[in-house]
Amino acid sequence: MNLAPFYLDDVIKRALQEDIGYFDVTTDSLIDESKRCEAVLLAKQEGVLCGIEAATRVFELLDEDFEARLFKKDGDLLESGQRIAVLGGKTRALLHGERTALNLLQHLSGIATATHRASALIAHTKARVTDTRKTLPGLRALQKYAVVVGGGKNHRFGLSDAAMIKDNHIDACGSIARAVEALRAKAGHMVKIEVEARTIEEALQALYVGADVIMFDNMSCEDMKKAVELVAGRALLEASGNITEETIARVAETGVDFISMGALTHSVRALDISMKIRVS
Amino acid sequence: MNLAPFYLDDVIKRALQEDIGYFDVTTDSLIDESKRCEAVLLAKQEGVLCGIEAATRVFELLDEDFEARLFKKDGDLLESGQRIAVLGGKTRALLHGERTALNLLQHLSGIATATHRASALIAHTKARVTDTRKTLPGLRALQKYAVVVGGGKNHRFGLSDAAMIKDNHIDACGSIARAVEALRAKAGHMVKIEVEARTIEEALQALYVGADVIMFDNMSCEDMKKAVELVAGRALLEASGNITEETIARVAETGVDFISMGALTHSVRALDISMKIRVS
Amino acid sequence: MNLAPFYLDDVIKRALQEDIGYFDVTTDSLIDESKRCEAVLLAKQEGVLCGIEAATRVFELLDEDFEARLFKKDGDLLESGQRIAVLGGKTRALLHGERTALNLLQHLSGIATATHRASALIAHTKARVTDTRKTLPGLRALQKYAVVVGGGKNHRFGLSDAAMIKDNHIDACGSIARAVEALRAKAGHMVKIEVEARTIEEALQALYVGADVIMFDNMSCEDMKKAVELVAGRALLEASGNITEETIARVAETGVDFISMGALTHSVRALDISMKIRVS
Amino acid sequence: MNLAPFYLDDVIKRALQEDIGYFDVTTDSLIDESKRCEAVLLAKQEGVLCGIEAATRVFELLDEDFEARLFKKDGDLLESGQRIAVLGGKTRALLHGERTALNLLQHLSGIATATHRASALIAHTKARVTDTRKTLPGLRALQKYAVVVGGGKNHRFGLSDAAMIKDNHIDACGSIARAVEALRAKAGHMVKIEVEARTIEEALQALYVGADVIMFDNMSCEDMKKAVELVAGRALLEASGNITEETIARVAETGVDFISMGALTHSVRALDISMKIRVS
Amino acid sequence: MNLAPFYLDDVIKRALQEDIGYFDVTTDSLIDESKRCEAVLLAKQEGVLCGIEAATRVFELLDEDFEARLFKKDGDLLESGQRIAVLGGKTRALLHGERTALNLLQHLSGIATATHRASALIAHTKARVTDTRKTLPGLRALQKYAVVVGGGKNHRFGLSDAAMIKDNHIDACGSIARAVEALRAKAGHMVKIEVEARTIEEALQALYVGADVIMFDNMSCEDMKKAVELVAGRALLEASGNITEETIARVAETGVDFISMGALTHSVRALDISMKIRVS
Amino acid sequence: MNLAPFYLDDVIKRALQEDIGYFDVTTDSLIDESKRCEAVLLAKQEGVLCGIEAATRVFELLDEDFEARLFKKDGDLLESGQRIAVLGGKTRALLHGERTALNLLQHLSGIATATHRASALIAHTKARVTDTRKTLPGLRALQKYAVVVGGGKNHRFGLSDAAMIKDNHIDACGSIARAVEALRAKAGHMVKIEVEARTIEEALQALYVGADVIMFDNMSCEDMKKAVELVAGRALLEASGNITEETIARVAETGVDFISMGALTHSVRALDISMKIRVS
Repeated sequence: MNLAPFYLDDVIKRALQEDIGYFDVTTDSLIDESKRCEAVLLAKQEGVLCGIEAATRVFELLDEDFEARLFKKDGDLLESGQRIAVLGGKTRALLHGERTALNLLQHLSGIATATHRASALIAHTKARVTDTRKTLPGLRALQKYAVVVGGGKNHRFGLSDAAMIKDNHIDACGSIARAVEALRAKAGHMVKIEVEARTIEEALQALYVGADVIMFDNMSCEDMKKAVELVAGRALLEASGNITEETIARVAETGVDFISMGALTHSVRALDISMKIRVS
Repeated sequence: MNLAPFYLDDVIKRALQEDIGYFDVTTDSLIDESKRCEAVLLAKQEGVLCGIEAATRVFELLDEDFEARLFKKDGDLLESGQRIAVLGGKTRALLHGERTALNLLQHLSGIATATHRASALIAHTKARVTDTRKTLPGLRALQKYAVVVGGGKNHRFGLSDAAMIKDNHIDACGSIARAVEALRAKAGHMVKIEVEARTIEEALQALYVGADVIMFDNMSCEDMKKAVELVAGRALLEASGNITEETIARVAETGVDFISMGALTHSVRALDISMKIRVS
Repeated sequence: MNLAPFYLDDVIKRALQEDIGYFDVTTDSLIDESKRCEAVLLAKQEGVLCGIEAATRVFELLDEDFEARLFKKDGDLLESGQRIAVLGGKTRALLHGERTALNLLQHLSGIATATHRASALIAHTKARVTDTRKTLPGLRALQKYAVVVGGGKNHRFGLSDAAMIKDNHIDACGSIARAVEALRAKAGHMVKIEVEARTIEEALQALYVGADVIMFDNMSCEDMKKAVELVAGRALLEASGNITEETIARVAETGVDFISMGALTHSVRALDISMKIRVS
Repeated sequence: MNLAPFYLDDVIKRALQEDIGYFDVTTDSLIDESKRCEAVLLAKQEGVLCGIEAATRVFELLDEDFEARLFKKDGDLLESGQRIAVLGGKTRALLHGERTALNLLQHLSGIATATHRASALIAHTKARVTDTRKTLPGLRALQKYAVVVGGGKNHRFGLSDAAMIKDNHIDACGSIARAVEALRAKAGHMVKIEVEARTIEEALQALYVGADVIMFDNMSCEDMKKAVELVAGRALLEASGNITEETIARVAETGVDFISMGALTHSVRALDISMKIRVS
Repeated sequence: MNLAPFYLDDVIKRALQEDIGYFDVTTDSLIDESKRCEAVLLAKQEGVLCGIEAATRVFELLDEDFEARLFKKDGDLLESGQRIAVLGGKTRALLHGERTALNLLQHLSGIATATHRASALIAHTKARVTDTRKTLPGLRALQKYAVVVGGGKNHRFGLSDAAMIKDNHIDACGSIARAVEALRAKAGHMVKIEVEARTIEEALQALYVGADVIMFDNMSCEDMKKAVELVAGRALLEASGNITEETIARVAETGVDFISMGALTHSVRALDISMKIRVS
Repeated sequence: MNLAPFYLDDVIKRALQEDIGYFDVTTDSLIDESKRCEAVLLAKQEGVLCGIEAATRVFELLDEDFEARLFKKDGDLLESGQRIAVLGGKTRALLHGERTALNLLQHLSGIATATHRASALIAHTKARVTDTRKTLPGLRALQKYAVVVGGGKNHRFGLSDAAMIKDNHIDACGSIARAVEALRAKAGHMVKIEVEARTIEEALQALYVGADVIMFDNMSCEDMKKAVELVAGRALLEASGNITEETIARVAETGVDFISMGALTHSVRALDISMKIRVS
């Protein structure tokens, strides 16, 4: 998967601009412009690496002679103490970009690690972890990339690439049937339609009017299990609603196809990765 | 504190663009353009509110007739179940902006809540919680605003507004004394100088050459306590290095002035806030 | 359908900047700043109106006191000579925005008109006209909006919102079956999969591996008819390949669900609409 | 002629972003990142090539190892079936950029071809084809470049680089004489002044007050012929008003210097050019 | 003259962002958000006012309730001590925008004042002062606006709106005649052609091949006088080359039509204008 | 000191776009695209060079084969007639960028030269010249860079990186003491606090409440001298208020640490530097 061109550079430039401001008063006063050095990216914690290209791109944008030797790539498991990469370039550039590179790397690796952990907990089922639109402003594509790297699947990117009929839409149309019908009449033929159901009854209504995907919204595991049986493979099924690492296995065992977890992207715990610079 | 003009709008527009894409295929197909409705922002968890202006700004940008009645303002404590605001506007606009508004509100309130909690743990000391540069790309000013709302203090914004002499700088200059001297010769007179010290010895060197602030980098509480006594108020003192809610009280009791916590902004747990829309 | 927020303003601002440059040397030299006047938008040709909001938005951005009385709205049929709107505002603003407003209005109405004409030609069948990615740089969302206004349906917006397996992808994977399988393993569950088929054989392969949509790529009407019968409603079917107003009825009569026409957006004939300004 | 720096890249980046979105779900799922291949750009129709640098620039922006062998350059005549270029690069990049490159190439070649055809129809006269401000939003400089490539001449770029006195301006000033006089007093000395005339009478008034260029606005060929004789070379003369390939020769034979055609840029017929990719 | 839409706002937003950064730490800490106050803009020096709309626009962008009563408008003469405007709004907003508004106002008034002074020195001749392309990055349109306000005329805006044949162009073409001819063949018919001449001989060559404007480049007043006589009104004549307030009258008396002065925009002396805020 | 990444390129691109517009009608019509040539940058006046990297960057952005041999670097003294650099590249690119490069170079060298001259006038004292926020819109970081190159020191960059308590803030708070106290409570610990004093009395108040820096605002030299003695090194002292080259020595001799001069950046006299192109 390649992140859309220019998007990554935009994120990095924005981050560098907010960090560097007009210039790095400490480094530019103390480190000679011609100096070069090496730095090592080190895992300080176990997890899944994500964002190594983003991190090295930070330095490429600051130093055209920058070079990196990578020992790990996105998706690789990290053990505490392992070297991820050795970086070489201008000392100033390495110091200018250090914080921005680590902020990206730790955040994305945090997401990939959490996704990997959740996926492992349901590996004995057919269910797959998926993300949501509960992402941080300006970072959605990067965060969704990290979910894939961690072994999850992406839900729709935003409001225009797939339809999700929620209670408000149903209320406005009068019934699930009318909402799906109206949507099919207006939306393009490449748009999948998902319907949120809060009861078995609603799930079956959605099924009968041809929803591509049915989301069980905060339903009990018992109800989801029954609904799975009644749907019998005629639609894709997604469980949703504050599912945690504690509850995910039970949810997966109901037989749903997908489990969406907002916390993967809205409550990210950064993975501890450090950068050691050796100024000679 | 007013966020810099245009910055907030930029963040919101970027978020709306990545969420809405070209149009909301569900809502625009199912909800009539002329429909208006009300929505309620509700706390689902105890915490500190932050970002209510950002959240309402989302809807103002989408609907010029949007109106909000606010029951809480940034910095207010929330109890689970409390109403934060009642929003009124075009149904389409409320649905278009819902996710973006909540993503902002939950993230910022999460930061304010964590800052408030950490501050409460050290309220019996003179120490204050402060943030770091470990922020998320493009969101630094918003995140730092949330730290202030939560009762913390801001550390430097980036590399250009204050100097922080770290081990690499010291190594490059030969000694703390030379680094501080060189910096004072080149930096403007409005720039404060902080020096990272890993030992009592280094802290005292920094003191003697006139550092404005000395940062104890991963020092033990015993050493920090001794250093605090030896410095005796002649410089501001900051403790740093993986300080958690478990350890913060002991650190504060050493007598330091500031405790910086990267986790406030790099590992944010979203505060649970919901938006209930009543489509009539 | 609401165009994504800010997108329309961005298109208009870009257009005004390239037209106005630094200032309108003629108007600003000859027309007094305080002068106001009226203008009439008139259809000079029969067609379907599209872009009236875009056109009035041009003037709103130039003159905060601008007002418009609209006699027609997007999607309305126009006869030659009919009044579309009466505009009132500063004379300078009306002259500054005239060309940009007309360029947008004529182009979008041209697309809506062509779409409407093509749709009328197949109104006796169940087939619907749909657009393609053969759009003009920077104008895709506006052009696709015009297709909807003209009575057509939108195909996927771009490369990320739906999958389209073409010959190169099939060649790279070895078979249609392997391509669809690999795609399903990696793409999110909200992504529809369309497969391009050049023969009946390929169409059936796509069907058997569960393609959501099958595109008949430059197939003869005879073959399409046979394929329609064999597929028997188990997948959506789309005809594609240089289909013109001359051939579209025969194609539709094969029983396909959708007919995509690149010319709707890549070879647009502007609809003749004029703006008469009455300087008093 | 070199398009202004950065402008072309801006157009391309905008086009790629709207097409690619966040990533190409099909190609990135099915084609290995390391794969490389060749592609051929082929003319499927007779015409004038325009935009080959824009098209190759698309791929350069996506793939730093991209290479192109060009057999034709902008302005060359194409016969159906001729190879325009052979492209080599990463398979993913070629597929990511294919549609954007073709959209640009087909649109610009369409303009150059139409300009060339119109120019050929008046090659027996001294008249030259010129463009107008009836261009598509955001694409004016590219479209005007294509007109030059096709053998036409550019009219003013926008409202600030030359003056065009129209009926509204004349009405506001009281007479052509007063309008020209007022304009000369205020506009810079490098600004040419063109006056729109609807009658021979008005044309002569414009001449007597020193207009640099006189535009015959929808005048009959008979009137234009008379006006040409009366002006007798003392001003440049331009014919304007729905001139088509059917009528252009007669207009040119009146002796005017320039014939402006809005359709060159507002009603473009794309030239059929294909890109065949050989995935190995 | 209206500055191109959005351009002024872009300049102001860029200026505010670089000044305010993320927030005004002094004002936002000390002044209550609800406080309102008045401020007076005062001339501290004699001169010509320019930029009052730009200055008030600064505050409009920061405070939607901002109001200004203007006593002077652009182009008015200021005496030391005169009130220019009384501003009313949020105290914070007035303090946030003060520096940016004054920077704009003082710079533009400085240009208008210098232009006015130079124009007064040649008021006894027919010559007019004109500007050059020697402007400050990003500020050209604003600076050229100030020249007009001060009573000067604008030269070409940039490289695309008029042609200026310099020695390098002549050398590349072989002669003035060939350069003018080649240019006329390629440039649009709305483009004026100016030729730089360093001798009377060259000036006459330019005349004979039909240059619209001839620039005397660093020629002596004697030579310019002779050239003026020989040209005898058949082309516009411009004097150029380090002309100062000391020398301008003698240059004007040679009979040239225009005198271009780079110093008007490249060496601006700010006009002293103050803003007194009354915090109550 | 490295200017913040991307900032310099942004300034240059904006300048090139406003100068070049859509294309250079003269050069692109007359100079063959393949032609290459050399150019020399020459000092025409004595001064301090600043902006040579900015100037060469202009050409790098226009021509990837551009090369420069530099004989001088930023901060070097220039004598009239000295060669600064020899440039080689495409003739078109050199002509396209010439004006933009010179505009930057002359402006920045003008600032560096004025700063150097002011610094020389006070070299017998310990005082240092410093800049202000009286800069030109969009150019602050570049202008402040030039001040450093000329031997001056930077004052705060903007409103967020340091605090400056002025009379309005004091009035709003009731006293200097209360203002400083309130500020210290709210601002981060890395923020220096400067207080404006108009009398010795105010200066001492500021001292007693712990201001880091005290600014003497338009105080007489006698009063400043007394205040310097009374403060006795317990705070940094800055003189401000229309200080010119005539008065600066006397001000410096009062014993202040810093003298801020708005004219360094608001009333810049361009340094005369030329670019001679040799078209072969």
